[in-house]
Amino acid sequence: MNYTYYSERTQKIRTAMTALGIDLLLISPSSNLFYLTGYALNPDERLFLLVLPKEGEPFIIANILYKEQVKPLPVTNHIFWKDGDNPFLLLKAEIDEQNIKIKTAALEPQIPALFSLPLSQTFPQTNFVLASSFIDPIRQIKDKSELDMIRRACKTSDQALKALINKGAYWIGKTEAEFFMELSAEFSKRGLSSFGASVQTGVNAAIPHYITGNGIIEKGKCLLVDFWGRYNGYYTDCTRTFYFGTPDSEFKKIYEIVKEAQEAAEAKAHVGYTLEDVDLAARSVIEKHGYGEYFTHRTGHGLGIDVHEGDSVNKGVKVPLKPGMVFSIEPGIYLPGRFGVRIENIVAITEQGVEVLHNFTKELITF
Amino acid sequence: MNYTYYSERTQKIRTAMTALGIDLLLISPSSNLFYLTGYALNPDERLFLLVLPKEGEPFIIANILYKEQVKPLPVTNHIFWKDGDNPFLLLKAEIDEQNIKIKTAALEPQIPALFSLPLSQTFPQTNFVLASSFIDPIRQIKDKSELDMIRRACKTSDQALKALINKGAYWIGKTEAEFFMELSAEFSKRGLSSFGASVQTGVNAAIPHYITGNGIIEKGKCLLVDFWGRYNGYYTDCTRTFYFGTPDSEFKKIYEIVKEAQEAAEAKAHVGYTLEDVDLAARSVIEKHGYGEYFTHRTGHGLGIDVHEGDSVNKGVKVPLKPGMVFSIEPGIYLPGRFGVRIENIVAITEQGVEVLHNFTKELITF
Repeated sequence: MNYTYYSERTQKIRTAMTALGIDLLLISPSSNLFYLTGYALNPDERLFLLVLPKEGEPFIIANILYKEQVKPLPVTNHIFWKDGDNPFLLLKAEIDEQNIKIKTAALEPQIPALFSLPLSQTFPQTNFVLASSFIDPIRQIKDKSELDMIRRACKTSDQALKALINKGAYWIGKTEAEFFMELSAEFSKRGLSSFGASVQTGVNAAIPHYITGNGIIEKGKCLLVDFWGRYNGYYTDCTRTFYFGTPDSEFKKIYEIVKEAQEAAEAKAHVGYTLEDVDLAARSVIEKHGYGEYFTHRTGHGLGIDVHEGDSVNKGVKVPLKPGMVFSIEPGIYLPGRFGVRIENIVAITEQGVEVLHNFTKELITF
Repeated sequence: MNYTYYSERTQKIRTAMTALGIDLLLISPSSNLFYLTGYALNPDERLFLLVLPKEGEPFIIANILYKEQVKPLPVTNHIFWKDGDNPFLLLKAEIDEQNIKIKTAALEPQIPALFSLPLSQTFPQTNFVLASSFIDPIRQIKDKSELDMIRRACKTSDQALKALINKGAYWIGKTEAEFFMELSAEFSKRGLSSFGASVQTGVNAAIPHYITGNGIIEKGKCLLVDFWGRYNGYYTDCTRTFYFGTPDSEFKKIYEIVKEAQEAAEAKAHVGYTLEDVDLAARSVIEKHGYGEYFTHRTGHGLGIDVHEGDSVNKGVKVPLKPGMVFSIEPGIYLPGRFGVRIENIVAITEQGVEVLHNFTKELITF
């Protein structure tokens, strides 16, 4: 574990807390805990908190069961409780001991009421606010270590998709669910976890939130594959659309429009533009060709420790692009009852321009 | 959807609310929402609430995106908000409109601070409490429809395990991860979702929270498989331990002790005993044979919409057994650096005795 990154992130958070008059930050198991400590812990019914005072030593309060697991963390001050103890009173005692005054405390937005209600009862004079208002903008700018992880996640997922697509005509007669299972296995083999995918054939590809089912891959149908997963805590997310058999001229036309829209948006993904500009670049290509009403969603979303995080790439999001921002560009056209096409890459904003993190071809592959 | 079950469940909840002086129940997407409406919705960043006043019409407040999805639900009064609206103010307006006075409101324990903080700001005079105190005991007694689902989940997972075990010596040389993947595929094929498993070979089986890895299945090693998944919303959870090659006399002895403990506990799973009695029945068998210190966990846990829910089967849990209670019985012995054995069945308490929901043999299978 490289502690430098964690101490830099903590320092940014503290600077924001000071500016906003926030005395204490309370983080339960979540992507924010991972961001600040590298610790990926699933939330459960036992209170676990990273406690970061504006000044003074941060500490962790955890059940004694976690004693070994927290040893390597960058936060080395640990307070343990046992089943039967009241961990909220232990927290209060430590805060009193350190003589921390908390007028305002920021809460992990994902902390369940199971913990937030007892916290507000333990500190009845404290004003609780959501930590997302200052953590999200900090997390939106990825550091070098995070960019490395996302880059590797994307490259590895490209290889997984290639392994499947290389099987070519093998897929004819297989179901969406079978494609899903084999892609899951390729992810798993390459060290990617938290695999998810939408595998959609033919008319199913026209339903943007369709869930992988028993549609058959066969000649005369498209195959839309949207898939994501985590590599060392950071996500990849990618979509490609294929065709089995010989596509008709309309499918080829729609495919080319989506590709043109995707590339127009990538071309606007530079410092000097906003997230809205990127959305408009894709949207205006699709509108120009008369398919605006069939592009029914935002152009993209931020990505990092969460598969969707931070600001959207959408109309009205006038957030200027900055080096270190990472998001998806994924326009699509969905013709109900017929087919759908979407092409998605993850991109990172650099000082010089844009880095496209996937290298899987965007040219139409047919079988 | 059979609405009778939902209205019976709602009635039980309302009776408890009246007894406890709770004016309003607020349920966000969770297993409680599924229990009360049959709607399995993943929590996201958009406020979705089932609002159940002590008296009067329950209603749902949801983003307009969910308009089609909520149509079949047993709660037919829907209030929709659009991106840009403040859904908390809409909720307040509806509550004022219905002239509901809320001194005390019960909150879904899993609702994130993202929503619970704005709720407490919207209703500053309301005392918020956790809904678990009265919902959990109600959910602990499964109705006929729930028992049917759990029964089918367990039987289906038995078939999935059988399909793998029938391959016999095929597994020699394969890894834990490969066994995991094939079991996952068998689950998926049979309509089970949310698959999870711990596949542990040899010395890895002695580590109770070991995660499936690259251990090799080979002669002279045990294979412990703990696996779970959901069928129409309800869980199965099962463990069996196998042996590749010819086990020595100590392994055979330990296996028989665990089996004897598991069966002793099943024999105490009757009305007239408590959850603690079931734990003690298993524990005393293992202690009698001198392995008490190697049985390092509780005997079991409640199960239903969540894989772990309700009370534990453990020392100190003096909860009397009642018809409709469903829990696991899963004693184990773990000899560090050597091997581990666990046998787990899900059981349901009936009027007459106990129904064991798995039919996979508990006799030692060797390859």
